[in-house]
Amino acid sequence: MIVTVTPNPALDLTYRVDALVPHGTHRVSAVAEEPGGKGLNVARVLHSLGEPVLATGLLGGSTGDRVSELLAGASVPAAFLPIAAETRRTVSVADHADATGFWEPGPMVTGREWAAFVTHFEELLGDAEVVALCGSLPPGAPIDGYATLVRVAAKRGVPSVLDTSGEALRHGLAAGPDLVKPNAAELSALRTPGSDPDELADAAWLLACGAKAVVVSRGPEGLLALTGEGAWRGVSSERLTGNPTGAGDACVAALCRGLRDHTPWPELLADAVALSAAAVATPTAGAVDLATYRRLRPAVRVSAAREGSPC
Amino acid sequence: MIVTVTPNPALDLTYRVDALVPHGTHRVSAVAEEPGGKGLNVARVLHSLGEPVLATGLLGGSTGDRVSELLAGASVPAAFLPIAAETRRTVSVADHADATGFWEPGPMVTGREWAAFVTHFEELLGDAEVVALCGSLPPGAPIDGYATLVRVAAKRGVPSVLDTSGEALRHGLAAGPDLVKPNAAELSALRTPGSDPDELADAAWLLACGAKAVVVSRGPEGLLALTGEGAWRGVSSERLTGNPTGAGDACVAALCRGLRDHTPWPELLADAVALSAAAVATPTAGAVDLATYRRLRPAVRVSAAREGSPC
Repeated sequence: MIVTVTPNPALDLTYRVDALVPHGTHRVSAVAEEPGGKGLNVARVLHSLGEPVLATGLLGGSTGDRVSELLAGASVPAAFLPIAAETRRTVSVADHADATGFWEPGPMVTGREWAAFVTHFEELLGDAEVVALCGSLPPGAPIDGYATLVRVAAKRGVPSVLDTSGEALRHGLAAGPDLVKPNAAELSALRTPGSDPDELADAAWLLACGAKAVVVSRGPEGLLALTGEGAWRGVSSERLTGNPTGAGDACVAALCRGLRDHTPWPELLADAVALSAAAVATPTAGAVDLATYRRLRPAVRVSAAREGSPC
Repeated sequence: MIVTVTPNPALDLTYRVDALVPHGTHRVSAVAEEPGGKGLNVARVLHSLGEPVLATGLLGGSTGDRVSELLAGASVPAAFLPIAAETRRTVSVADHADATGFWEPGPMVTGREWAAFVTHFEELLGDAEVVALCGSLPPGAPIDGYATLVRVAAKRGVPSVLDTSGEALRHGLAAGPDLVKPNAAELSALRTPGSDPDELADAAWLLACGAKAVVVSRGPEGLLALTGEGAWRGVSSERLTGNPTGAGDACVAALCRGLRDHTPWPELLADAVALSAAAVATPTAGAVDLATYRRLRPAVRVSAAREGSPC
């Protein structure tokens, strides 16, 4: 079973309006509600692939209840720890041109709640083959929260995939996650100011900081993997247009499955490229178009990014 | 006890952002949640005045649960009928310049749920001295829904105040509510196209349609009352700047209390003008500034709008 952790999930609302008029009043013609947060998207993608998965994290209040209901409605197994504060919402207002987003701040998590979650997480590890640690940490959670979860999983022999950014990523690296998956912007944000832009060097720096492998998601440019066994680039032979939100989460879903199955890196990278593209082909995050996935999978080109091992 | 009915309540969310940028992504710096809907505002104002009140209507889903929680947190007595569909939200995004509003459509109410609500309402009338019927009807509710509630109340000898607009108001008038409170825009929207704009004539038309009394709220221009006993205008001696949202609901709260106490019309009108102004003095709907209310109350000017009775 793959356990996905979403410490700061959300209720994602999408409002359809004719045209966004600043300082006007809009009647929303349609409302879509989705469980939101990277780890939930990973869990939904894995579930749609028929992979055993369990979603966990922290949920609070009636907004948290609604997220639970939506997950249950999609038959995604979940075991969240209840917290006192209200889970956040995101509101995306879509008009004929584009979307305008409003992101609520996350709920304040108490020290006691975070400690309870670490215990809860440890209890879930009995059946876990891989854990995915995804997205931002909510206010109040310790900035090295992911490092703690990586260590707890490692002690039980469960490999971890960490997909976060900024300080949460920087602190998480120190605990030696088996795989980190920054996107290009998240990777360059960690670069020492003034240093030369070099994606391979930046990825190598994450290995030096403690990660056992790095996969960088680069949008339509595909994936770059840097591991103890070698470095590869994977790119789709076909460019898809669509909704890129959630493509990184589909990538993490593929990586978790591959880690679980000990899939060789070049094959795993091809799988992750195809599943990411299959997410672009659907309008909502957390979903993949399985026909697109199957069509693209054999046609992903994977090549060595450089000779030999970077280590 | 005053019973307020809100058939289509909402969870009102106010988001604070730096500046609204169409098609940008905004981190919300502060979120305020309030129970929304005219009848809930009326109930909250009456409760803050120490008047016995009970809020009812239809609430559904986790959004409805949140509205219930917020009412309970404010100690406002409530007895809502649960429905299957989700209660709506409104999102108001406030930046340095003004607010941008997004209104979700209301939940679809089934015929069985509406019938259950009419029964529920009838059961609540035992202790009722006045009922306030407020705001829009949700999708699925019969367009003559307010007429039914007015008749049920009248059969029990309970006077009703109807504050709605458009077709819901037009159909409600036929049942002979004791008082209707359109604002100037709602009143003129009912005028026959091509007829001369004349507020007194428009108000008289509502009496002809069945209402026993009409109070027109006219913003800073105060109130106009047309009743079987005479016609009056009431205006505050002091102009307040502030948030006019909820001023009409404070007016309805004052009118309900006055109907209950058989307050003479000129005195009641002065009270309603002062309480409306006290709502303008607070930043949120459903609240009144009691110091402003007490200061303005003696200084409201009430005069005859015309001689004699219009009937």
